[in-house]
Parts: sequence; structure tokens; C-alpha cells
Amino acid sequence: MSNLQKEDFSAWYIQTIKQADLMDYSPVRGCMIFKPDGYEIWEHIQEEFNKRFKEEGIRNAYFPMLIPESFFTKEKDHIEGFSPELPWVTEAAGEKLEERLALRPTSETMIGTAFSDWINSYRDLPYEINQWANVFRWEKKTLPFLRTSEFLWQEGHTAHEDEESARKRTMRMLTVYKEVIEELLAIPVYEGQKTPSERFAGAVDTFSVEAMMKDGKAVQAGTSHYMGTKFAEAFDIKYLNRNNEHVYAHTTSWGVSTRLIGATIMVHGDEQGLVLPPKVASRQVVLVPVGPWKKKPEIVERLEELLRDLKAQGIRAIIDDSDNSPGFKFNEWELRGVPMRIEFGPRDMENNQVMIKMRDIEGKEAVSLEGITDYVENALDEMQTRLLETARKNRQMHEYTHINTLEELKQHIEEKRAVGELPGFVLAGWDGELETEAKIKEETGFTTRNIPFHPSVEKESCIVSGKPAKHTVWLARAY
Amino acid sequence: MSNLQKEDFSAWYIQTIKQADLMDYSPVRGCMIFKPDGYEIWEHIQEEFNKRFKEEGIRNAYFPMLIPESFFTKEKDHIEGFSPELPWVTEAAGEKLEERLALRPTSETMIGTAFSDWINSYRDLPYEINQWANVFRWEKKTLPFLRTSEFLWQEGHTAHEDEESARKRTMRMLTVYKEVIEELLAIPVYEGQKTPSERFAGAVDTFSVEAMMKDGKAVQAGTSHYMGTKFAEAFDIKYLNRNNEHVYAHTTSWGVSTRLIGATIMVHGDEQGLVLPPKVASRQVVLVPVGPWKKKPEIVERLEELLRDLKAQGIRAIIDDSDNSPGFKFNEWELRGVPMRIEFGPRDMENNQVMIKMRDIEGKEAVSLEGITDYVENALDEMQTRLLETARKNRQMHEYTHINTLEELKQHIEEKRAVGELPGFVLAGWDGELETEAKIKEETGFTTRNIPFHPSVEKESCIVSGKPAKHTVWLARAY
Ligand SMILES: [Zn+2]
Ligand SMILES: [Zn+2]
Repeated sequence: MSNLQKEDFSAWYIQTIKQADLMDYSPVRGCMIFKPDGYEIWEHIQEEFNKRFKEEGIRNAYFPMLIPESFFTKEKDHIEGFSPELPWVTEAAGEKLEERLALRPTSETMIGTAFSDWINSYRDLPYEINQWANVFRWEKKTLPFLRTSEFLWQEGHTAHEDEESARKRTMRMLTVYKEVIEELLAIPVYEGQKTPSERFAGAVDTFSVEAMMKDGKAVQAGTSHYMGTKFAEAFDIKYLNRNNEHVYAHTTSWGVSTRLIGATIMVHGDEQGLVLPPKVASRQVVLVPVGPWKKKPEIVERLEELLRDLKAQGIRAIIDDSDNSPGFKFNEWELRGVPMRIEFGPRDMENNQVMIKMRDIEGKEAVSLEGITDYVENALDEMQTRLLETARKNRQMHEYTHINTLEELKQHIEEKRAVGELPGFVLAGWDGELETEAKIKEETGFTTRNIPFHPSVEKESCIVSGKPAKHTVWLARAY
Repeated sequence: MSNLQKEDFSAWYIQTIKQADLMDYSPVRGCMIFKPDGYEIWEHIQEEFNKRFKEEGIRNAYFPMLIPESFFTKEKDHIEGFSPELPWVTEAAGEKLEERLALRPTSETMIGTAFSDWINSYRDLPYEINQWANVFRWEKKTLPFLRTSEFLWQEGHTAHEDEESARKRTMRMLTVYKEVIEELLAIPVYEGQKTPSERFAGAVDTFSVEAMMKDGKAVQAGTSHYMGTKFAEAFDIKYLNRNNEHVYAHTTSWGVSTRLIGATIMVHGDEQGLVLPPKVASRQVVLVPVGPWKKKPEIVERLEELLRDLKAQGIRAIIDDSDNSPGFKFNEWELRGVPMRIEFGPRDMENNQVMIKMRDIEGKEAVSLEGITDYVENALDEMQTRLLETARKNRQMHEYTHINTLEELKQHIEEKRAVGELPGFVLAGWDGELETEAKIKEETGFTTRNIPFHPSVEKESCIVSGKPAKHTVWLARAY
């Protein structure tokens, strides 16, 4: 790695994802290629969410990607929010279309139209589905995984009898996001509510889980929206309730995207490149023969036996018996984020042991071949836990709760930058006004991330106006 | 079912997919909605193919959906083949684009461009990937699952050192398709080579697996293409070979799509509606309490215990303890194609038995609750096998090998139609000329399906010209 994470985080990030072979740029503006090692992280995320959605009784479906322009105009806030970044199909099969078709940025309008048909009685409710799909938001500034013109995501859409049931689903999915992001990706998140200016276009309330990257900046890792009856009114999602009245359903939507891959890289990566949580690593263990192994075929034979044993235990392992030097291999697999390296040479054979190097900690350990597969399984589990703990510690070190005025915030940012430290996340009081929120952004580049449900400190006065604070908010620079 | 399969197959098909709740139409011309019960069939198909691809060493990736117009023009046959049905993005984020972007109909051009970057040496070969994606072909006449403007598919793309290795991959994937379609979907297929006029746009050779529907018409169920060096030349996929020369790679591509769902419905469905092969049924077993069950809570309790046991065995089962009558439920779950129904009432409880009705055969059987889960598992396996056998028999009954002239073919078609039978698939001699092939289509509506590798009869003279036959081909009407 020629780019140091500490010195130029952006350059480090780009170098890391290229050297780990996760992606490539494409000739289409703002669109990227997910190479197999990058895409497989997404597949593991999908597997876990599919399991969770199923447990929640939510099933997958698929809706058309092209959305007629007239659909968007039905919900005023929705079209206002999305129209600046929509790509449009205007011609097909040699003919100009009568109505432009947008490439979906999200599917509320398409699914709302379907729900209007499908939902007739309270017996049909709750109606809860999810879609895995490609979506489009024509972005000016792009960053692989984190902001691209086409990306992959899941979008859940549900309709309910009343506000209580819809809000329960909204909050439940936020919890599912928090659990999966923490348990699978080892990324701790802040749960909270978005301020009105950061709400999803057309939502009544938007909630988010926010993660802190190693450069102290925020990534919005998942969002869950309560729509009230706004989309139901726009798309006529009415049902016959238990009192035989036609009333509007309450709807929700919620999503996570391939941004999660970017967040995983930025939270765990280090100066040696990518570090992958074992649960999403395509290769959890790499076996490397060392010493004068080529003269002793029994070295590779023994590794192949170990490989079979590990695979039988459900561990994703490979052998690297290429001609490259051990040092080259160590570096290569570190760059690619493989959680565990097992070295094995003639001397280890004599001692009936292997040398184990975990990607996230210094030093190697000699481990007996006796009971090795259980050892490996435990060590991977421990690494998974350790990554989350380490990320939590990193995060705590860059949470600031003592800042009370905009001047203090500016000074904090300047001071931290001057010494090469991170301004991180700042907990601030806010009077709830759009203008004060805008002023924070204008003067510091920090934006409101969310209003945490249980802030560690309740701030009393607004960081800008000094008036009594309505909310305590997280502020940070964001991707 | 008000529409009889025997009398109006098309009306039957539409009614079947609607009553089984597999899909809905969408307001976007030619695009359909995959509802959960339809989409889950696709998910089971994906699971199986992902397993097979992994065994083959093929990994998933994801490429941009939008393809610049200039990419298409690089391979002349390719653009000619696809341009009549492409939708185009011409505007994005409020601005007119400098170059039109096509919604991918297939990704040879995008992936070819990437391969050109990624492949440098023979050490990089074979390079083998797969993509699951939505694709677009703006169709005039559409039919749910079988022909829609947007559909879902997998497309595999590989690059090889030489023709031999590329052709081996091409044929291997045809075999994988045959195996999965037969084993998972219980659909027997004819393997063979497409005639030049039916080749994939830009391929050197196209191979297909073709299935016969219950109305005797054909569905092309999967294709595998050997591209030679045509795409490599168009996209500059060159590599340094073992002799240190820069040479073109040989490429392949192969795909199956959500058409497979349509084929499954049309091969197995009957006058009671959908019949699903157990391996892809979202619900393999429905448990229905019968008799005066509401007065005896122990009936549903016992069914719940059975449900747990079945689920523990990995069987996808549900209980229908709604207020509807048993007759209503039986009909409902038959329409939806559930492979097995288990009835259980007070009298069955006394006898420690259940009544079992398999979706594809008449009559119920009393089965002891002793060892019931093993019985269910076996019965589902047997049904899976039986469906394939039944489909094979249906197919054999509508294969005709005795037709030697165009007149005989016309007469065959007329005679069969007159008595309400199916003209089916006809094995014919063909002189290999484009004109004779065109004439068959013009005069009978039959098209060449493929040239089977091992026809049961080798035809000696061309059905049109009477000249010596170059090939023996399958002829049929096709979806
Ligand atoms: Zn994996
Ligand atoms: Zn299933």
C-alpha cells in the first residue's frame, strides 16, 4: 500500500478496493463493476437479510424497473426529491415513447400502484414484501460502493391497518438493520431519527442507522421510513376496515444498499489494506506452505487434508501453492483482507503444528494440528467479535459531547485537523429550525446525522441560536 | 378454472398464473410484476444454479446495466440482432446525454470491454463469471414469464485460451442446463444446435435445450454460445499465450431466464390449475383440518406438532386453519399447485392417521402418523420423479418422426388440429439452406428448434427441397 490511511484516506480507500480486486470502474459515467470478490460480500449480506426477512414473514417479489413519469407526479414531495437525479428512457425499439419512463430511484410509486390493486380488506393487511434490485440516482460526484449512479439494494414495502402497526414495522426494521450490520459486518451504528430536511422524499418520519468510518466521517448505513397515509392517498391504497369503512392504509419502506460494502472497508481496513469480517469474507482462511515445502510433497498433502477438514466444517478456505514467495503471498492475502493465514512448513510438520496469523492483530501463534478445525472456527468467531469491539473503541474515541457553540465546533474541527486527528461525531443541541441546521452545514461542512433515541448527554441549548434545544443531534461530515 | 387447458391453452395459462397469484400486469407496457409465489420459484432456480456454478468454479459479479451505443456497434452482427428491440436512455438529471445508453439486452459488450482490461496472460484464463440481472428487449407481443420487455436472467461469460477449452465450457453449461431443468423443474429437454438463422447475434455456434409444452409448442429453455474470437476481436480481448504471443481469447456465453417459470407452468399444469414440482414449490405441503375440527382443539394442536416435525425435516409446510370450508381450501391449494395436501380430522385422530392427496394423481391415501415425516419426504421425491416421467411420456406422444415432405407436414398439422390433437414436434430432414428453412416457417408456422445431437431417426432428404438432408432438425411452433 503506497497510500497511507492516516495521511490520505480517500487515496487509501481507492487503492485498497483496487488491490483487493473488489471492483472496477466502467466506461459508463458513475457506474461501477462489482467484481467477484466485491460481489460476494453483497451475497453474504443478502443471505443474512433474506433469513431475517423470512423470520419477519416478509417475502421477496420483483417489480418493473421503469416508472412512468406520471407516477412520480402523484406524490409532490417524492418527485421534488428525486427528479434532479433521474435518468429517463425516451425511445424504445426505434420509436419515441409517448411518456418518459424513469429508471427507478426507489419503487414507492410502482409498488404503491400495485398495493392499490392488491389490498382490499383488513384481512389483506399487513401486506409486507421486499425487493432486491438495481436502482439509479444520477450522481455528479461518485465514489465506488458509496455513491454511484447505479447501485444494488433491497427495498422493503409494507402496508398496515393503522399507524401503530406501521410504526412498529418501521422501528423493527431499524433494529434488524442494526443487528445485521453489527453482527455480520461488525460495524457499530447509531440509531436515531432523521431531521425533517434529511427525511426521505415523501416520508412522515425517517429513521437511520449511522456508522463512523475510520476517517471520522459518517455513512448512512440503512434507513426506515414511516409514510403515514401520504403514499396511500397519492396511490389510492384503501381498504375496508373492521368497521366496514373504506380507509387509507399506513405504509412503510426501508432499505440498505451496496454502500454497506464501502462502509465495511472504511471501518475495518488498515495500512495493509482490506480487513474483512470473517462472516462476509469469501475466503476466511488461506493455507500457505512455507520453508523448503516444494521438496516435501507431504507438506501440501497435509494442507490439502486440512483444507478438506476446514471445508467440511463449513469454513471457506483455500490453499495458495503457487510459485510466488511466501512473503509475496502474505502481502497479497493481507491486501485482500483474508481473516486468517495458516503457515505450514517442514519444521511445523515435525512439531505437528501450524503457525496462525490473524489479519487484525500482530504476531503469529503456533497451534497444534490436534483439534485444529475447532481452533480455527473459534478464532474466526473471536475475530468477528474483536472487529466489532475495535470499531466501537475507535468510534468512542471520536465522539465529542462537550461542544456547545458553533464557535467551539469550528475550533474543535480546526484543532483536530491541525494535529492530524479526527473531528469525528459531535453531539449538539438543536432548536429544531431549518435555518440553524443549514448554518451548521454552511459554516462547518458538518450535517445532522440523526437524533439519537438515547443520547449519552442531553444537550440543553442550540449550538447555533443558543435557544433551548428541542433535540440532541449527531453532527458529522458525511459520505 | 373456467378455462379448459384442452380447449383454450392460452386462456388456461393466463387464468392459472392469476389464480395461483404468481404475477400481475404492470402499467408499463410489456413489463410484469413477479409476485412472491412466482418470484420464489425463481429463487429456488437461482439457488440450484448458484450451487452448480460454484461447483464449476464460476463466480458471480455485477456489471452496469446501461450500455453506451458505441459498444454495440463494435460487433456488427450483435447490434443488428438487438437494435430493433432496445430501449434507450437519452436524458439524465435534466440534461440530454451526449451518447445514448441502451438498457442491456445482454452484456457481451460490457463484459467484453471489462475482459479486455482484466485478461493479460494465459495465467488469467479461463476467466469465468456469471451475472444475475434484469434485461430488456422491447417486445411487441408479450406473454407473462415467456416474453416480457423486462425479464430476469443469469448470463455466464467466459474467456479461454483456445477453441477446445471454450467449446468444452459451452457444452458443459448446456449439460448443466439440461440437468437442472430436468432434475429441479421436472422438464425433459431436447439438446441440440441452433441453425444459423436462429443463432445468438454474434455467436459462431449456438446450442439450446428445448422443451415441449402441454399444447405441443416449444419453449427455448436455455442457450449456450461459442463466440469463437468474434467478440475478442471486437473488444480486443488479447492475452500473452504460452509462446509469448499476443492472441485473441475464445469466449462463450450462456443463459437461462424467468421463461423457465412459464415453461414449468405449461409443462405440469392441469385442469385444476398450477402443479409445482416439489423442489421449487414455496409450499410443498398444506395441512388442512377436516370434519368437526373446531370443536376439538387437539386436531389443530396435533397438526401444529406435525408442522414442526415437517419443518425440522426441511419440508416447506403450512397449516390452513382459516374459516373457509375444506372444499374451498382443497380447491384453493390445488389452484396454487401445492404438491401435497394432508387432511386430518377427529376420525383420523382416532385411527392415528392422516389422509394424503398428491396434487398430480387422483385419490387419497390413509397414512399412519407413525413415521409420517419420512413418508412425506419420500412422497415428495416420488412426485418430483413422477412429474418428469409424465412430462416425458406426454412429450413422446407428440414427437413425430415419419414426416418426409412439406405436404405431409401441412397435412399432419391439419389432421391433428381437426381432431383436437397436437401437431407437436416433428423431426425433419433439412438441406441446410436458409430458403428451405424460411419456407417451412412461412407455410406452416413451424420453425427449426434445434439440430439434435443424437436424433432417434436420421432423416435422409430435406423436407422442402427433397435434396439430401444435411441435418435432422426438430420443427415446432414456438413461444
Ligand atoms: Zn461466500
Ligand atoms: Zn422457498
